[in-house]
Amino acid sequence: MSQVHVFNVKMTCEGCSGAVNRVLGKLPEVTNIEIDMEGQKVLVTSTLGSDAILAKIQKTGRECSYAGGKN
Amino acid sequence: MSQVHVFNVKMTCEGCSGAVNRVLGKLPEVTNIEIDMEGQKVLVTSTLGSDAILAKIQKTGRECSYAGGKN
Repeated sequence: MSQVHVFNVKMTCEGCSGAVNRVLGKLPEVTNIEIDMEGQKVLVTSTLGSDAILAKIQKTGRECSYAGGKN
Repeated sequence: MSQVHVFNVKMTCEGCSGAVNRVLGKLPEVTNIEIDMEGQKVLVTSTLGSDAILAKIQKTGRECSYAGGKN
């Protein structure tokens, strides 16, 4: 089942948010990505677990952490 | 043998260059990283081949390409 996961991700410009968006957008299990640059949050709708998504975001070289699920 | 490889990498802020630096810095085979943000270049000193390094940079979600070796 698809869930919305929220992640804290350090992003400072459009290049930063674009990179995160591109990496997550390549995952077929990700159906929606919302980036809140001001709040330094990324909301990911996916059937994947939060660990798998977090690992992918970490590969972009950014500081990030799991902020919890959203219903 | 260690070589210096040059890559074109799209970076627009310190967050961008920091992310690239962090990802490459985790590789034990990389002994030096020089980032030229103005020139949009990353110089990597490593025993790794350019393909392996490029794949790692691509995982950060940035547009990048190999620009050649440097002696």
